Amino acid sequence: MFTIQNVLIPVGQEYQAVSVHIVEGRIAAIAPTLDILGTAIDGRNKLLLPGFVNAHTHSSEMWQRGMIPPYPLELWLAELYDSTPLDPEQIYLSALGTAVETLLTGGTTVVDHLVLIPGRELETVAAAVQAYKEVGIRAFVGPLIQDESLESGIPCGDTGRKHQPYLRSTEAMLELLREAISQFHRPTEGISIMAAPTGTQLCSDALFEGCVELSDRHDLCRHAHLLETKAQKLLAYEQYGCSAVERLKRLEFLSPQTSLAHCVWLDEHDIDLLGDTHSTVVHNPLSNLRLGSGIAPILKYRQAGINVAFGCDGAASNDSQDVLEAIKIGTILHNVTDLDYTNWITPHQAIELASLGGATGLGMASELGSIEVGKQADLVLYDLMNLSLLPRTDPIGLLVLGRPTQVVDSVWVKGDRVIAEGKPTRINLDELRSQLFNRSQWSVNRKSNAVQQVEDHYRAVMQLPASE
Amino acid sequence: MFTIQNVLIPVGQEYQAVSVHIVEGRIAAIAPTLDILGTAIDGRNKLLLPGFVNAHTHSSEMWQRGMIPPYPLELWLAELYDSTPLDPEQIYLSALGTAVETLLTGGTTVVDHLVLIPGRELETVAAAVQAYKEVGIRAFVGPLIQDESLESGIPCGDTGRKHQPYLRSTEAMLELLREAISQFHRPTEGISIMAAPTGTQLCSDALFEGCVELSDRHDLCRHAHLLETKAQKLLAYEQYGCSAVERLKRLEFLSPQTSLAHCVWLDEHDIDLLGDTHSTVVHNPLSNLRLGSGIAPILKYRQAGINVAFGCDGAASNDSQDVLEAIKIGTILHNVTDLDYTNWITPHQAIELASLGGATGLGMASELGSIEVGKQADLVLYDLMNLSLLPRTDPIGLLVLGRPTQVVDSVWVKGDRVIAEGKPTRINLDELRSQLFNRSQWSVNRKSNAVQQVEDHYRAVMQLPASE
Repeated sequence: MFTIQNVLIPVGQEYQAVSVHIVEGRIAAIAPTLDILGTAIDGRNKLLLPGFVNAHTHSSEMWQRGMIPPYPLELWLAELYDSTPLDPEQIYLSALGTAVETLLTGGTTVVDHLVLIPGRELETVAAAVQAYKEVGIRAFVGPLIQDESLESGIPCGDTGRKHQPYLRSTEAMLELLREAISQFHRPTEGISIMAAPTGTQLCSDALFEGCVELSDRHDLCRHAHLLETKAQKLLAYEQYGCSAVERLKRLEFLSPQTSLAHCVWLDEHDIDLLGDTHSTVVHNPLSNLRLGSGIAPILKYRQAGINVAFGCDGAASNDSQDVLEAIKIGTILHNVTDLDYTNWITPHQAIELASLGGATGLGMASELGSIEVGKQADLVLYDLMNLSLLPRTDPIGLLVLGRPTQVVDSVWVKGDRVIAEGKPTRINLDELRSQLFNRSQWSVNRKSNAVQQVEDHYRAVMQLPASE
Repeated sequence: MFTIQNVLIPVGQEYQAVSVHIVEGRIAAIAPTLDILGTAIDGRNKLLLPGFVNAHTHSSEMWQRGMIPPYPLELWLAELYDSTPLDPEQIYLSALGTAVETLLTGGTTVVDHLVLIPGRELETVAAAVQAYKEVGIRAFVGPLIQDESLESGIPCGDTGRKHQPYLRSTEAMLELLREAISQFHRPTEGISIMAAPTGTQLCSDALFEGCVELSDRHDLCRHAHLLETKAQKLLAYEQYGCSAVERLKRLEFLSPQTSLAHCVWLDEHDIDLLGDTHSTVVHNPLSNLRLGSGIAPILKYRQAGINVAFGCDGAASNDSQDVLEAIKIGTILHNVTDLDYTNWITPHQAIELASLGGATGLGMASELGSIEVGKQADLVLYDLMNLSLLPRTDPIGLLVLGRPTQVVDSVWVKGDRVIAEGKPTRINLDELRSQLFNRSQWSVNRKSNAVQQVEDHYRAVMQLPASE
């Protein structure tokens, strides 16, 4: 039970100084003046916003951030999976790091599309869940499952290429998901398991159907990559003779609790299908630029009434976990796609996408994503005295369009203060830094054998000139 | 005289741990081990890079950052100039703020295309110069001069619109520039005045010719905006019947010491002209996105051998002065413009554009922009133990592609340490924050009368549907 006093909150396009009561993890009252209940928190010269959702990431990629050369997704993946396999301790550390960077940039929820260590899949999930519980962030963990081998993700063209089968069967992957649900799905404690097949390019119909069945049975969110690259669009027609979105619709994967990362290469009909099914698009602007995937048509999605959220994507394709950065670039990037500025996303709209949009995609819009009495207290307090937010103008304009640096004073998740005075309250940040430092070494960009093995084929099917 | 010991520097695509001697403001020696001369600086777990050039900004816009709604340049300008005029004290404070944010994100030189207070033009220049001297950054100050009124910057279309004359004569503007040169141009002290007409859209031939004459006589750099928007491209043909670049070429404004901000709407012939004259393109990616100006064809410029530098642009169109942010977005943005990833800018190339590219555009390539014996010591020391640069992978990959936060440990300009342990050494940052706070107030986005006056005309000439 506590009271935030004299804090600015947005009310429509304006701001109001209010006090806020938090009782048993929920917002109990909001008014210009309130008696102090419990601890008093001084909100003067501070801004209170609902927590953002980092709506798509892969936490373990933190170990490879800064390392992979400028490649498109298909070659970047070859490089990523060529790295030394991680151990569960590293999974734990990178989940901690992902959570801390998310919290310190305004996020209260992370959606971790978690890359699994082959043969140690449940240990991987356990390590990430442990980290998220310790640091206190709300987490949706989607074990990344597939039943086709990575090389299937590149179109064959007319080469008649055959792919190796995947190392595990469809049933084994579904059994793994069942076990993860049984051991870790605890939504009221802030940890939810998602049904999260990698994407249409690497998953059979049977795997999607199994995920739909499990998500229906356990009321899970669904999550997948969708049409991130031009190659994936070509591949869908090559594999199934229809668009990837039509396939997902036919498999009944699309729903109001389904969030789809990227959505760069959809056509008008695909957009209608997402709208009809009330699915959510997760926009990962930095990753889409870094990998040259393209600019997702976010303004079109908004005009079609489709819910949009922001994600950082994994730290090897971004290469950070700064939610405010994803919001800024995901907002201003689209101004170059439409000459009519009346369609551009405003800073206030951007904040709503990042908070309520994120919550909506997780089926949590009635519980999270805005500052309203009765909602859960997933809240972030920003220090408006920080140089990067001065001089005083429009606080949300500064936050979204500026480059805020260490502006998060406090973060509450379910009413628990997990960040105070800009630092995690439950873990030792210096210890985390030491661990990350000690378990890594400086290295330079390299071109792995894995990339060389697929590069000629990739260039041929994408009609790029042969490499030298 | 001092020695940085055991510091990582990039050598080709690799890194080497070295010691560096700085004597009388220049790099005197670089070797794996050196005796300690003067003060010893511990460079362990740190990276030393040449300072970046923030190659285009307008410092006073800091007062309006976060405030202006999502508008294209032409309406954004109407809003910008509708704000309350500033006083010289504010100019001083925003120049300090611009310098500090530039230094704390790796910049050692700022190019300030300085908006002048009408009637107090020389006081404006004096205030900015004072701030730059105090904080210790290297500054190129280009008083922003024009001799046509702001409304001339929008094409007439077929409306036969007549514009008001500008408030000052061409000769008065040139006299002002002469006086600024006489009072403030002190290159050896780190303060240089530039001949910096606003751009082709607001300047007569006579003003350009006067600027060329003064820059020749005093060996000044030249600087101007160039083809930032589609409207400016239309306008050039409407006003002069040729492209804006052809006009600059005819006026002999283009040269190896000429840097041109934006260059979004150039055609192939224009690109040839920039290449032939060895002019520099200053890329301001965040501003170009924020204002919806377009994506400058930077990969084409590089293929044509044109020198490219990075700028933040003014803080009301960005809305920050974070040089590392401009480098990141200015690097990855172009990956979506070319499917062939072999043309994409690598992190190491990005660092070179930001440092040597910036120095080249200012005619300083022999003095600045790389870590070489004999060059001036404009250097930045990055703390590689910062969470945002961990775990250890490729330091430059992390710096360019990540989201570094407070990673600058020390900055030297001409060998003077102007940042130490992440803080300015010569000014009081808390005092600056107080001043910025006290001289401003929270306000919300608004739509000014100035915008309403030009909006209908703008929409008509840009063939946008009539506003509601």
